Amino acid sequence: MTDIFEKKHSLLISNVMADERCIDIFIDETGTIAGMGEKERTTYKGEAEFIIDGDGAIALPGLVNTHTHAAMTLLRGYADDMILQDWLSQKIWPLEAHLTGDDIYQGTRLACLEMIRSGTTAFNDMYFCMADAARAVDESGIRAVLSYGFIDLFNAEKRENECKATENLAAHIRALNNPRIKAAVGPHAIYTVSPEGLRWCAEFAGEQKIGIHIHLAETEGEVNDCISRHGKRPSGLLDDCALLTPRTIAAHCCWLDDAECTLLGNRGVHVSHNPVSNMKLATHRAMPYPYLSAAGVNVCLGTDGCASNNNLDLFEEVKIAALLQKFYWNNPTILPSHDALLLATENGGKALGFGTGKLLVGTPADIVLVNTHIACNTPLHNADSNLVYACNGGAVETTICDGKVLMLEHEIPGEAAIRECAARAACELVNRARNS
Amino acid sequence: MTDIFEKKHSLLISNVMADERCIDIFIDETGTIAGMGEKERTTYKGEAEFIIDGDGAIALPGLVNTHTHAAMTLLRGYADDMILQDWLSQKIWPLEAHLTGDDIYQGTRLACLEMIRSGTTAFNDMYFCMADAARAVDESGIRAVLSYGFIDLFNAEKRENECKATENLAAHIRALNNPRIKAAVGPHAIYTVSPEGLRWCAEFAGEQKIGIHIHLAETEGEVNDCISRHGKRPSGLLDDCALLTPRTIAAHCCWLDDAECTLLGNRGVHVSHNPVSNMKLATHRAMPYPYLSAAGVNVCLGTDGCASNNNLDLFEEVKIAALLQKFYWNNPTILPSHDALLLATENGGKALGFGTGKLLVGTPADIVLVNTHIACNTPLHNADSNLVYACNGGAVETTICDGKVLMLEHEIPGEAAIRECAARAACELVNRARNS
Repeated sequence: MTDIFEKKHSLLISNVMADERCIDIFIDETGTIAGMGEKERTTYKGEAEFIIDGDGAIALPGLVNTHTHAAMTLLRGYADDMILQDWLSQKIWPLEAHLTGDDIYQGTRLACLEMIRSGTTAFNDMYFCMADAARAVDESGIRAVLSYGFIDLFNAEKRENECKATENLAAHIRALNNPRIKAAVGPHAIYTVSPEGLRWCAEFAGEQKIGIHIHLAETEGEVNDCISRHGKRPSGLLDDCALLTPRTIAAHCCWLDDAECTLLGNRGVHVSHNPVSNMKLATHRAMPYPYLSAAGVNVCLGTDGCASNNNLDLFEEVKIAALLQKFYWNNPTILPSHDALLLATENGGKALGFGTGKLLVGTPADIVLVNTHIACNTPLHNADSNLVYACNGGAVETTICDGKVLMLEHEIPGEAAIRECAARAACELVNRARNS
Repeated sequence: MTDIFEKKHSLLISNVMADERCIDIFIDETGTIAGMGEKERTTYKGEAEFIIDGDGAIALPGLVNTHTHAAMTLLRGYADDMILQDWLSQKIWPLEAHLTGDDIYQGTRLACLEMIRSGTTAFNDMYFCMADAARAVDESGIRAVLSYGFIDLFNAEKRENECKATENLAAHIRALNNPRIKAAVGPHAIYTVSPEGLRWCAEFAGEQKIGIHIHLAETEGEVNDCISRHGKRPSGLLDDCALLTPRTIAAHCCWLDDAECTLLGNRGVHVSHNPVSNMKLATHRAMPYPYLSAAGVNVCLGTDGCASNNNLDLFEEVKIAALLQKFYWNNPTILPSHDALLLATENGGKALGFGTGKLLVGTPADIVLVNTHIACNTPLHNADSNLVYACNGGAVETTICDGKVLMLEHEIPGEAAIRECAARAACELVNRARNS
């Protein structure tokens, strides 16, 4: 008997709920949604190699995580509850100095596993040894935009290296020729990259027609330092360097002022909100969703890395985004459940440019099924509300990306080995750091 | 073969982690932890009716939810994202007017199911038709302190009814003679209960030697109204009415000032933090944990009801408490993972007075086992960190209360029927309200 996990098959998913209708979904052998409606079961029954009984599950577009550092799963729980600078300089950076390419592979494999399990089918990554990350993404079956974290520390020699690494990654990803994997340019932030480096990144991304992934206005200190150094706020500096484009995803953005929101809107920048990380590291201001939204900015959602979250569950992130925006901006009507869910689906899809982030006939089948026969979906007065406020990623039972089944009724082939290899790699990493 | 779920049995739980040691736990047939250590397996093997292979799980004391309205599970997702007063007056109260005793029973059964599934073994409830709630708790196997929500709306006649209902509940619970169920007095809040009503509640609770459960300083409006009406802040008013005692649990407490924190500390009041509800309803100020902590107040944790959360997962609540305190008070070192976990275990245990909230020989076995062979516990650099920041309630695989196994490897007997009955009750409730 053929294994449903082995490759793409034509699939009939019967009896699922989408937009409050009970429908069937037919996916053809190319991984495209070929039919979606109330009678697809009768139309396509003979054509489907496999039938998945949805059993009343909610069908959603696969969630999109627009800011993370996937391999940092290996650092989950290694250090928490510290002042940001101490945490980085005493704990995170010393450990990262010992990371090998194989660690990046193992950590990214674990991250992909965790994302598949919690319903995420595409992510935006920034880290290093990205060829190893690409190998993990390729094997996992999900989608990713991969960027090398460009950090020149205002040093010309180091800048040369970073340009080279960025060029190499773009060439490597192009050579992979895997439609699920794209390269982006990853200038880390204004406080780690020189204006020359930022300009080079903008130019290279433009030439290559690839995305830009950057941290922006995460802390008040970053804004104040930028003003004293450059006489302008961070978004102004990025704009001078031509880095604000419709291909740019700016993460965090907690400390934007109104004019910056307008500027980002005018430039078509996508903003990735990371509420858990911002709260954990005490940025003390929430990304100004009401202002960004009014400025027409496409706001999407990211978990950040596992060292500052410490998981990759976008359902949890959606809930906390909806809660934080209400609490900080003092209005319980901000970011209602329907809109909150869009941050992680349509808006994320728009930002990464992998399809639409919607369930539509003729588009690649990135679909997750959420179990409705569990306490968090009982009762089911309002599916959007339950998905945002009551469920977590554990409610996802089946995950399909590009038409390939990656998890079926909570089963992911090879899961134990991925966890065990990552656990071993993390252990050995800490030992190497300790003994150095 | 005897059913492990049927009644209390002597149990040997082998190979679990507690306080970074790998141990076995022996529970005798009275439900008491009789042995706990590295060699209990050899000592007690012959005596155990059942052996549960912990398989490296983390053993924790059962979590304690110190503020909820359990039966409101039926309202999960019924109305969200509204201004507090509109939400209550247009949505929640009109629906609650149609709740029957059977609804309360079904809703509380669903709540208990959800709590067992996510590792909670005791809760502090305030609602109405509490005899029906007691029946659900009795059958579920977990512990609860039940209070009737005393609301006299400053009306003498209504006050008579509320006193009667409170006396009836106390008598009913005494007659049940179930050590897992206690009664408390539940004056709802200073804005719904007259000073005469508050004083009566204090007196009755003192006579009966039972607890007091009240909402306090949830919103800025409550504080401002209290000052204009009574010339003092809410805690001062409660103190005048003798309601601040070591048997009192005050929920929310977002808008306490420093002097109130000191007063609550001096009176031995327990404060139940409800971060999810506070964020969702936009209280705009976080409970002042640093000040309460400095004043020696026992701070514990509650989910609030499912209409304002919308689940009963205390693992999620612990994480959001740790995040919110850091973010609001602008310091990432506040409420580190070890302390955050204590809010939901030891501190909750202290507040409800059901045992110690610790795993100790000679105490009732309220134990939950958290799976370590899952992504959120990989790697396992620090168990407390993973439990707080990476896991949710879905990581709990086994729940034991008073020595009785309530969930074993995610299986809870009778679960489907409980969900189906609750879903039906919720549906009929909404229909009754619509047609009235």
